[in-house]
Amino acid sequence: MLTLKEPAALARRLTAWRAEGQSVALVPTMGALHEGHLSLVRRARDAADRVVVSIFVNPTQFNAARDLDVYPRTPERDGELLAAEGTDVLFLPEVEAIYPPGHATWVEVAGPPAEGLEGEHRPGHFRGVATVVAILFHRVAPDIAVFGEKDAQQLAVVRRLVRDLGLPVQILPGPTVREEDGLAMSSRNVHLSPAERRAASVLYRALAAARGAIEAGERDGDRVRGVLARELATEPLAEPEYAEVVDADTFRPVRKIAGRIVLPLAVRIGTTRLIDNLHLDLRDG
Amino acid sequence: MLTLKEPAALARRLTAWRAEGQSVALVPTMGALHEGHLSLVRRARDAADRVVVSIFVNPTQFNAARDLDVYPRTPERDGELLAAEGTDVLFLPEVEAIYPPGHATWVEVAGPPAEGLEGEHRPGHFRGVATVVAILFHRVAPDIAVFGEKDAQQLAVVRRLVRDLGLPVQILPGPTVREEDGLAMSSRNVHLSPAERRAASVLYRALAAARGAIEAGERDGDRVRGVLARELATEPLAEPEYAEVVDADTFRPVRKIAGRIVLPLAVRIGTTRLIDNLHLDLRDG
Repeated sequence: MLTLKEPAALARRLTAWRAEGQSVALVPTMGALHEGHLSLVRRARDAADRVVVSIFVNPTQFNAARDLDVYPRTPERDGELLAAEGTDVLFLPEVEAIYPPGHATWVEVAGPPAEGLEGEHRPGHFRGVATVVAILFHRVAPDIAVFGEKDAQQLAVVRRLVRDLGLPVQILPGPTVREEDGLAMSSRNVHLSPAERRAASVLYRALAAARGAIEAGERDGDRVRGVLARELATEPLAEPEYAEVVDADTFRPVRKIAGRIVLPLAVRIGTTRLIDNLHLDLRDG
Repeated sequence: MLTLKEPAALARRLTAWRAEGQSVALVPTMGALHEGHLSLVRRARDAADRVVVSIFVNPTQFNAARDLDVYPRTPERDGELLAAEGTDVLFLPEVEAIYPPGHATWVEVAGPPAEGLEGEHRPGHFRGVATVVAILFHRVAPDIAVFGEKDAQQLAVVRRLVRDLGLPVQILPGPTVREEDGLAMSSRNVHLSPAERRAASVLYRALAAARGAIEAGERDGDRVRGVLARELATEPLAEPEYAEVVDADTFRPVRKIAGRIVLPLAVRIGTTRLIDNLHLDLRDG
């Protein structure tokens, strides 16, 4: 595995692969890698000839300075894990290589699916995400890019961005990987104390309960929101920010449940903010 | 010359050229072509193996609905002129091919050089320009793109955008082409009545007077602004919007004239708004 910090060195590597007709898949990450990330790398490996993984803790998508400060960083272990998965290039740029001096250009999805939920609770977050994704797509020019379904609204924002700006890249989603008790793997889970870690399983219990209600025939959005809220309320350490039922394309709340929907949650456990979701496709029933 | 309306057909053509190792230059235009545009096409022809010219009257960069409505359209003549210049592909997309249904993603330079002047007098203009330029760059993936110096602030905004978003394209400027009396060629000149057309030469007279003052040693920004204003005031049909002395990178007004500067003008002649500028490099004196 090559580890490259300079965009120019990356560009030379990519030009050589393209001249050989090799396809490239990109997995953009912020490091502190876990099994969820590695499953995305394997998906990239299956889909393209070459795999580039970027690790860049993108300052512009952190709306809270403390969250950026404490975001876990495990560069050595990340490198070992990626090499073991057959990653071809680890792209590890400095902030200045992504945002040059005087940087003033932003990419913004100014409508659904970027409004509401994360867009509302983390002002500027999706602008930072859209901008860094565009920059990485320009630097890597991947045929395929893999994004995790754990960040469901981000995935929808990236799809909208790609369509709206005519970016020649195919977006592949990767399923959420969960711990045994259902907790979605996340780099931020390391912040949880043992008691908080036990409490954190309430997110998945709430999602499972809501799915159960829908599978039993419930089609009223507010009743399913009630199921989510009641289940989250059973855990004293959990402070929900939102627990919603939204359309899978627009991420707008739905009244009547039909088609493709997402149940997105954001919950604080102590000082740690966790998100999770379930995607349900009700088009055939 | 191939005329293509569909991005997918364009992509196939470009993929074939790239497989043959041919370089591509893009000349983005809004049609109603004149000698200024054709000089850009020749510059593209000299710089790359293949030349793509786009004609797209971009609705999002018109801040005034009437300006968009009356913007001149001469598609047949444009095609003949481009074919005669050895253009390889004329890309002629419909609005829906550039902005898909539900389009909500914008590219914006939120700082210098997009503030002030055109940024102030035409709200939203540069957001529309930056967005369509990004979309065209994604669709064409040119090695080189040619932009006219007549739109000097636009050229600076495009350079900033390319640097900030890491777009792998080289920007080539093309000198302003002028009529015999100095009027910069512009698609909007056709709107001028004969009397207005005669009056329009005042823009170049003002620029030439300001250049003369600077060449004679004047280094005070306000005195040069005074030269521009006084010369423009000699023409009763001319209503100046701005007449400035700015830094060539930031497009911010300068007090002391030094380095690379631009003298940008925007002047209404009747209902027609004309812009022009001179670029001066004082780094060696």
